[in-house]
Amino acid sequence: MDRRGFIRAAAVTGVGGAAASQLAAPAVAKGRMEWRMVTTWPKNYPGLGTGAELLAQLIERGTDGRLTVKVFGAGEIVPAFEALDAVSGGTVEMGHGASYYWKGKIAALQFLTTFPFGLTAQEQNAWFQYGGGQEIADEMYKQLGCKFFPSGNSGAQMGGWFNREINSLEDYKGLKMRIPGLGGEVVKAAGGNVVNLPGAEIPPALQSGAIDAAEWVGPYNDLAFGLYKSAKYYYYPGWHEPGSTLDNFINLAAWEGLPADIKAVIESANAAVNQTVLSEFVARNNSSLKTLVQQHGVVLKAFPDPVLEGLGGLSGQVLDGLAASDPMSRKVMDSLLSFRKDAMAWTRLSEQAFTAARALPYTFAEAKAG
Amino acid sequence: MDRRGFIRAAAVTGVGGAAASQLAAPAVAKGRMEWRMVTTWPKNYPGLGTGAELLAQLIERGTDGRLTVKVFGAGEIVPAFEALDAVSGGTVEMGHGASYYWKGKIAALQFLTTFPFGLTAQEQNAWFQYGGGQEIADEMYKQLGCKFFPSGNSGAQMGGWFNREINSLEDYKGLKMRIPGLGGEVVKAAGGNVVNLPGAEIPPALQSGAIDAAEWVGPYNDLAFGLYKSAKYYYYPGWHEPGSTLDNFINLAAWEGLPADIKAVIESANAAVNQTVLSEFVARNNSSLKTLVQQHGVVLKAFPDPVLEGLGGLSGQVLDGLAASDPMSRKVMDSLLSFRKDAMAWTRLSEQAFTAARALPYTFAEAKAG
Repeated sequence: MDRRGFIRAAAVTGVGGAAASQLAAPAVAKGRMEWRMVTTWPKNYPGLGTGAELLAQLIERGTDGRLTVKVFGAGEIVPAFEALDAVSGGTVEMGHGASYYWKGKIAALQFLTTFPFGLTAQEQNAWFQYGGGQEIADEMYKQLGCKFFPSGNSGAQMGGWFNREINSLEDYKGLKMRIPGLGGEVVKAAGGNVVNLPGAEIPPALQSGAIDAAEWVGPYNDLAFGLYKSAKYYYYPGWHEPGSTLDNFINLAAWEGLPADIKAVIESANAAVNQTVLSEFVARNNSSLKTLVQQHGVVLKAFPDPVLEGLGGLSGQVLDGLAASDPMSRKVMDSLLSFRKDAMAWTRLSEQAFTAARALPYTFAEAKAG
Repeated sequence: MDRRGFIRAAAVTGVGGAAASQLAAPAVAKGRMEWRMVTTWPKNYPGLGTGAELLAQLIERGTDGRLTVKVFGAGEIVPAFEALDAVSGGTVEMGHGASYYWKGKIAALQFLTTFPFGLTAQEQNAWFQYGGGQEIADEMYKQLGCKFFPSGNSGAQMGGWFNREINSLEDYKGLKMRIPGLGGEVVKAAGGNVVNLPGAEIPPALQSGAIDAAEWVGPYNDLAFGLYKSAKYYYYPGWHEPGSTLDNFINLAAWEGLPADIKAVIESANAAVNQTVLSEFVARNNSSLKTLVQQHGVVLKAFPDPVLEGLGGLSGQVLDGLAASDPMSRKVMDSLLSFRKDAMAWTRLSEQAFTAARALPYTFAEAKAG
């Protein structure tokens, strides 16, 4: 924890505070209520922390200030990975992070963020909205005393930075790699030495040789961290995180104490944030990738197909293992894999066929491209 | 126009009414205001009309009923393609349709919906939010006395239903096809006889042989219309509409008369609708495609690459022609094509590489898929 940040925050808003359930209804009745949102991100971190700020702004604007939400970076009130406890226990009313950070509470939660060889961002959204995902998420978050909303998506990530080439699955043996979540379990199964470091600790670890490889997010965030300075090869695709969903979690009693119109504002605000964060990554990854390649000479490399097939096979084993040991993981995984089957069939004919078509050599040969 | 629908609507709400600017502020001050939304869709049409209904619901819920919006299907107050005039002139306050329906007003508007070999849905959203698209749209809609929001997306569409095979670009010569917008201009350039029929007129036209081919949307909507009964081949990809954006347009004076919190509610509600409509198409296309193939024996066919390259070359010519004759089209097109260049580079390494990877033969071989 950043103690100075903690004290600073405490001076402004009072540490801990009453349980949210005590605050909600009376404060609204008087017309004004101030909530606090803890996050797993550094304050205003590009795309992620700014997504949390946007959520707060949209809630304040949509409620004409009847509900304001003050956003705190990781470590300002509680450390990143204690954000859920802080909300669950009523220390603060709201949090922003990613479900896979809470797998220690309920193992099946990690499936809600993303899974290896899983769903793209828009397929993931479709699963939440029309595939039963929201209901499954509500069931689990309710056990933690929280209400859940999808609240941002990174889109398909990169496969990571490597200081040596990956030519076969054997090359993962002994590889020291920073990679979290289910993807990390798969790299472990391939023989890698997996570590999970907070983002800010990745650049020095890669530079010192403490790790040989690291995945973070994608060009926009990776350029900001200067990861190209310490590892030569930038691999794609991000088989392990094809569309990671961020989560907004709200103390359930505080949520239930809200009037219906403020609930509706929060619901729409989260949908807006969910889309806006993805848009930011899509737009900024575009231009950051250009900078990485053109200005920093980054060597882009595709994982060879046999490596992807090997990782895919291991992913199936890792997921099966989780599902076999835990009924809730089985339930979430069955729902996701069933949705994935149809989604793959449709995406193959639609976006997959389309993006291949627009890349054909003579397409748009005559158009002056800006 | 459906005259009975018109009279029915008139009885309920009063025809025409005062200009929106006269209604807005005083009505809000009294705490309640009722707006009307005309649409280009049949009432409650799947995905499209239901998107307009969702928008109205989110606005009503988010404002605690201070602003209610009554939704009208095409022909109930005005015919589909007079919706913009009705909003622009203040007959009603709000409309829902697609920008390419208004190309008769400003030619460059059709680029805002989608363009051949253009952007996927999430790239299109990123262009609106981070690529200058919203500002360009605002500039044009302001000339029409309207405020614009993206308000739904069909995702990548199918290439259409054909009663004969398309083996070369020559096969478009004399082909009678229903295909609107810029895609229609390209088919014309390939020698086709292009017609633009409202959706409901497509099934009889295809059945009678009045047309040889028709594109509508995708499996979800096409299954509902039973198009598989009249044409044997279902082609992909939808090169002409890779991510069509629907538009919500609001009388500018009415918009400007709103208090800031209601503006914020409408803004977030549109973002929510934008995402939800896409989610519905992604989820329902999945299952409808399965029904089409497994229950109705639909023959799925990919356009051969040389056909796509030929259509791509013609698309470049058609777009160049539009841009050469109209500075605003030049401005929008340059912005879109510049964004497209970066977007293609990033999508190639991210979703395109990922969707190829997860389709590899041995990937997930061990997982029990639902």
